[in-house]
Amino acid sequence: MGLSHLVYPGANHTRFHHALGCLHLMKKAVDILKFKGVDISEEEEEGVLIAILLHDIGHGPFSHALEHSIVSDLSHEYLSLEFMNRLNIEFQGQLTLAINIFRGNHDKKFLCQLISSQLDIDRLDYLKRDSFYTGVAEGNINSERLINMLNVVDDKLVVEEKGIYSIEKFLVARRLMYWQVYLHKTSLSAEQLLIRLLRRAKYIFETTDEQIENSTLNYFLRHDINSENFDDITLQLFSKLDDYDIISALKSWQNHDDFVLSRLSKMILNRDLLKIKLKNEPIDQEKLKCHLSKVIKNYKLSEEEAEYFVFEGTTSNLAYQPDKEHINIWYKNGKIKDVSSASDQLNLKALSKTVVKHYLCYPKTYN
Amino acid sequence: MGLSHLVYPGANHTRFHHALGCLHLMKKAVDILKFKGVDISEEEEEGVLIAILLHDIGHGPFSHALEHSIVSDLSHEYLSLEFMNRLNIEFQGQLTLAINIFRGNHDKKFLCQLISSQLDIDRLDYLKRDSFYTGVAEGNINSERLINMLNVVDDKLVVEEKGIYSIEKFLVARRLMYWQVYLHKTSLSAEQLLIRLLRRAKYIFETTDEQIENSTLNYFLRHDINSENFDDITLQLFSKLDDYDIISALKSWQNHDDFVLSRLSKMILNRDLLKIKLKNEPIDQEKLKCHLSKVIKNYKLSEEEAEYFVFEGTTSNLAYQPDKEHINIWYKNGKIKDVSSASDQLNLKALSKTVVKHYLCYPKTYN
Amino acid sequence: MGLSHLVYPGANHTRFHHALGCLHLMKKAVDILKFKGVDISEEEEEGVLIAILLHDIGHGPFSHALEHSIVSDLSHEYLSLEFMNRLNIEFQGQLTLAINIFRGNHDKKFLCQLISSQLDIDRLDYLKRDSFYTGVAEGNINSERLINMLNVVDDKLVVEEKGIYSIEKFLVARRLMYWQVYLHKTSLSAEQLLIRLLRRAKYIFETTDEQIENSTLNYFLRHDINSENFDDITLQLFSKLDDYDIISALKSWQNHDDFVLSRLSKMILNRDLLKIKLKNEPIDQEKLKCHLSKVIKNYKLSEEEAEYFVFEGTTSNLAYQPDKEHINIWYKNGKIKDVSSASDQLNLKALSKTVVKHYLCYPKTYN
Amino acid sequence: MGLSHLVYPGANHTRFHHALGCLHLMKKAVDILKFKGVDISEEEEEGVLIAILLHDIGHGPFSHALEHSIVSDLSHEYLSLEFMNRLNIEFQGQLTLAINIFRGNHDKKFLCQLISSQLDIDRLDYLKRDSFYTGVAEGNINSERLINMLNVVDDKLVVEEKGIYSIEKFLVARRLMYWQVYLHKTSLSAEQLLIRLLRRAKYIFETTDEQIENSTLNYFLRHDINSENFDDITLQLFSKLDDYDIISALKSWQNHDDFVLSRLSKMILNRDLLKIKLKNEPIDQEKLKCHLSKVIKNYKLSEEEAEYFVFEGTTSNLAYQPDKEHINIWYKNGKIKDVSSASDQLNLKALSKTVVKHYLCYPKTYN
Repeated sequence: MGLSHLVYPGANHTRFHHALGCLHLMKKAVDILKFKGVDISEEEEEGVLIAILLHDIGHGPFSHALEHSIVSDLSHEYLSLEFMNRLNIEFQGQLTLAINIFRGNHDKKFLCQLISSQLDIDRLDYLKRDSFYTGVAEGNINSERLINMLNVVDDKLVVEEKGIYSIEKFLVARRLMYWQVYLHKTSLSAEQLLIRLLRRAKYIFETTDEQIENSTLNYFLRHDINSENFDDITLQLFSKLDDYDIISALKSWQNHDDFVLSRLSKMILNRDLLKIKLKNEPIDQEKLKCHLSKVIKNYKLSEEEAEYFVFEGTTSNLAYQPDKEHINIWYKNGKIKDVSSASDQLNLKALSKTVVKHYLCYPKTYN
Repeated sequence: MGLSHLVYPGANHTRFHHALGCLHLMKKAVDILKFKGVDISEEEEEGVLIAILLHDIGHGPFSHALEHSIVSDLSHEYLSLEFMNRLNIEFQGQLTLAINIFRGNHDKKFLCQLISSQLDIDRLDYLKRDSFYTGVAEGNINSERLINMLNVVDDKLVVEEKGIYSIEKFLVARRLMYWQVYLHKTSLSAEQLLIRLLRRAKYIFETTDEQIENSTLNYFLRHDINSENFDDITLQLFSKLDDYDIISALKSWQNHDDFVLSRLSKMILNRDLLKIKLKNEPIDQEKLKCHLSKVIKNYKLSEEEAEYFVFEGTTSNLAYQPDKEHINIWYKNGKIKDVSSASDQLNLKALSKTVVKHYLCYPKTYN
Repeated sequence: MGLSHLVYPGANHTRFHHALGCLHLMKKAVDILKFKGVDISEEEEEGVLIAILLHDIGHGPFSHALEHSIVSDLSHEYLSLEFMNRLNIEFQGQLTLAINIFRGNHDKKFLCQLISSQLDIDRLDYLKRDSFYTGVAEGNINSERLINMLNVVDDKLVVEEKGIYSIEKFLVARRLMYWQVYLHKTSLSAEQLLIRLLRRAKYIFETTDEQIENSTLNYFLRHDINSENFDDITLQLFSKLDDYDIISALKSWQNHDDFVLSRLSKMILNRDLLKIKLKNEPIDQEKLKCHLSKVIKNYKLSEEEAEYFVFEGTTSNLAYQPDKEHINIWYKNGKIKDVSSASDQLNLKALSKTVVKHYLCYPKTYN
Repeated sequence: MGLSHLVYPGANHTRFHHALGCLHLMKKAVDILKFKGVDISEEEEEGVLIAILLHDIGHGPFSHALEHSIVSDLSHEYLSLEFMNRLNIEFQGQLTLAINIFRGNHDKKFLCQLISSQLDIDRLDYLKRDSFYTGVAEGNINSERLINMLNVVDDKLVVEEKGIYSIEKFLVARRLMYWQVYLHKTSLSAEQLLIRLLRRAKYIFETTDEQIENSTLNYFLRHDINSENFDDITLQLFSKLDDYDIISALKSWQNHDDFVLSRLSKMILNRDLLKIKLKNEPIDQEKLKCHLSKVIKNYKLSEEEAEYFVFEGTTSNLAYQPDKEHINIWYKNGKIKDVSSASDQLNLKALSKTVVKHYLCYPKTYN
């Protein structure tokens, strides 16, 4: 949830809790499918359970912020895989099947779909969980009913015909959670601040001799980590990095000599964020420049430095991606249709159109 | 809910309970609007509360079934109005304002919209209530949040911009409840049986001297009630008619000499309903005729009588009717847009397309 | 729930729904016990499921009211057993095991305890259900957790040590539901009225030639049914008697010549009940006599007739009956203790003291 | 909740969220009381709202653990008061009324009782909140109904007669939460470990020259803070200390040269806690000594050092303290009784008996 607790103060749930929830739902899904006669061996059951338990293990602290600042070209999927491979060595190959399912390489494709698809267990858990902890009741989905409606036809995960309205509601709830929670403008503004703060920190610690106290964080700020040089030591250190390191660093950076680093740290810690405007059209460049000049003048900064406080960007939400992969509705007559054409009245095709919003961030005051 | 308890055994909630719920929600809506500075006088508040409390008072037992059989051309809105007028005499004109609001004649149109519109208090109560009692969790709506988002602009009820996702979810939940509950094929089949049963009873008691024990029901079976001859006595008797009269009649008709009446009564009481097929295309007339012949032959009936057991029809659901009336979204910049064009991604226009389904009913067995 | 809907308008749930709920919970209990290694054969599982499904089948309409008026010395347990025996003949002995469990005669006593004991499945369903439908949230119990804590030791149902606080809460919730719902003074007053009304009806129809239209109800009003003369025909007729017969009779009796019958009918139908006073001490006989005289004088009735409108009685609640049967707590060290001595702080022994309350009913007005 | 998330992974809610919840409930309570005619001026309303918002502001990170290690003789109530006094200077006396209410010095005693008593708003919020986030459903209380039952008689907060069953349930739920959550043996063991770890750290940093990186934490580890020397600078620094400082310190101390500090840090961070035995009787001193010797021998420690890993203690729960202050039940006849004598059946007097449990902690293994 990144910094969503700044908007929804109850949203302090953890990735660990999500992993347990996914495991629980996956067990239900496997039980239901086996009850319906789908062939899943004991090894496959164990594999798909391990895969879902570990699917998010590669997320670092403030996951998306970190991916766009410190370990810039390493996705969390890549890192999850690195961890699984490491664990597979430790457990002498017992995770091989899990890894194949996680990578989408297992020959029973429906098992891979349970891990990653338009209707995977991950989504069934996090939508419900995030709705619960934020209190955004409209995002609540009926995970249990959705799982009960699952089946497998021709090695594809399908939803039984009578589940179509539940799927519609799942897609609409997901869309609502995106705009109301995940892409809430205050969270967005906070996350962008954190990304810039970490980039600034990286710039400073890469270009000066200054010592940082936390050796783990030090490593990631001083080294350019990428898939080429990612090794066992990096993995080891990455596993130790958590929210406590980041926030503690921010706390100490409040008094740093660098104005940008110090100011950005204070802004996040005191929840004194940038103003953010969300628009359907591209940002007016005049306005952007105008705010930039004000920051340059008032904060006495270079243009480069001012861009830490005034910037634009885009955010988008694609509620349903049938091009990438379908949610299949299975009719009693044996036919299978994608949900966006199966739904008679609710034009779900529209959900597969990306909605792009443009944002402009700038300081609330210039004191 | 008519005969929905045959499908959802928990759905035994009453119209009385619904009336109390509406009153409760209306009080909340009035409080919120007044808090936001909307001018509502004490008399108007009383009026709109009375109007919602009594809005459904004209419903007879098994409301829709009755409207299509016994009091065929009298809508429940007409009857509610008759009751209110009668009460207005008794209370010496104290209901005049309430009646004007109910009829849509009050000059503050937003008060009328609270009683009857695409987002009226009636719907906010019954969707939540029916979802609760059927256990169809996906139909649950956040009535309280929807009410909190209400406002009035230019004498029109509007929903504040940030409520748009809640409105989308309300419309999708409503659509889901229609197909999953209100138009559930088993309820549909039961309701059609009841309509036909009551028509048969009316036919028998109008054309024979047979005495029926229940004098109230007797009156309605022997008289053709319509808006011309509807008088105070009819109103008085209508107010006494309830589910107990209908079901008790069915219980005694199980042993009636008329095969049709007796058989239909048993079918409903024993939940031994007709088979029903729901299709997107018109019913194949050959199939219909085939079932008719079987009934004629096996039950030894005339074609006219057989049509009580084999029949076709259509049912439709229009989730949102912007032509009739809008759900207005009010933007911070002052603009007002209909929700179907305000929603960026979810093509709500599709919701305003009527979905028609065709059904064919016929006996499960011919013993 | 008898006439509780007069107080809690949502409380319209049915005995059928309760039977389904019990079946559902019993399946869970059986699964948990089998999972823990308790030996339950397939036949026994079927037996205990049938027994719980049918455990309440002998309840007539407004069960307790009927037991104290029309079929005075026949308990619903006796009648349930009669139905099961009848079904056993129809199903050629397949219910024998179920009947033994229901009667407490099966050699595995814990199966009998699941049907009837201080912590039986019946209670686990009805407390939760009644709390849900009345909206008395404090009566809600965690049936699922309670079932998860069950085990069997020495053929006795026990609750594992860590479930002790849940048991305490179950007993307190039960007590709360008794006073707040089941013995609510308005329901009590309504039920006493109905008992007296049915006795009056029985008196009238036994002593006059008057014809009553409903032949089923007629049978029970004109015959003294007891365990001696209870036969197959009676059982058949009893199975047809439901709330619709009783309420329809009341509706027609509103206009009966007998003042007592007519007045009592109107009082119940119009929810215009007697006033009721609940006291910890016996009723002051002077007050009782005073009200009686007023009724005799104002209604112009004999003393015997007046006693239909003015009467006293007692009601009691015994929250926990360790003398009859224990709720056993099973400690990790193997010991078993009754919950009332196991609870360290909450003096549950007090719960096993019967609380008796005295009530006095009399008319609100004498017009 | 201290370290409860080690047992209940959802229990990550914050004190900030609790403060908001209390504010919300207090507003409800004030509205209800004013609606019932209790005289509360605007200043008093503001005062009681400020008092509840700030009542917990003096809690440091891992509150109770900190109180028993770092700032040993300063209660969180003392610190809350210090913060309020400081804010009162900043806000030029606007908090004076709030402070008087918080200290119990305001002349309307019922306002003080809303802040601190057997049924204060604090408890109404935290019981419900902790039940929600831990998932221990039985601890759920009906805060809203309890607030609706409040009234004031003779300047005392009372509960109306019909709320007595809700109060009983509140007391039982509270008791359940104590044993099942707050005093859960695993949390207890973790908290005791943390207390000892912080004492060890204090010992090391007071007796050596070693530099600690975090200057805020450094201050509290190197100084003996007590009510004598507590000044504005201390308050300032205390306000900056949070969970991030403590956990970050633990992370770095994992590699500390001091075996005790390093080992304790690892134990908490890796959730590799001590074994804990809970007994109703005092701990057997032989057993304690036996575990001590094992630790001395296996870890090669002095006895003093070994006592960080092997220790005994007591924990207790007093569910209801009528001696200290009553929960008053207000009868319709005007009388007021303490709930423990008002309850007819549930012996609440037993709740006022302190339950003491003894615990013994020692390592799971000696490697």
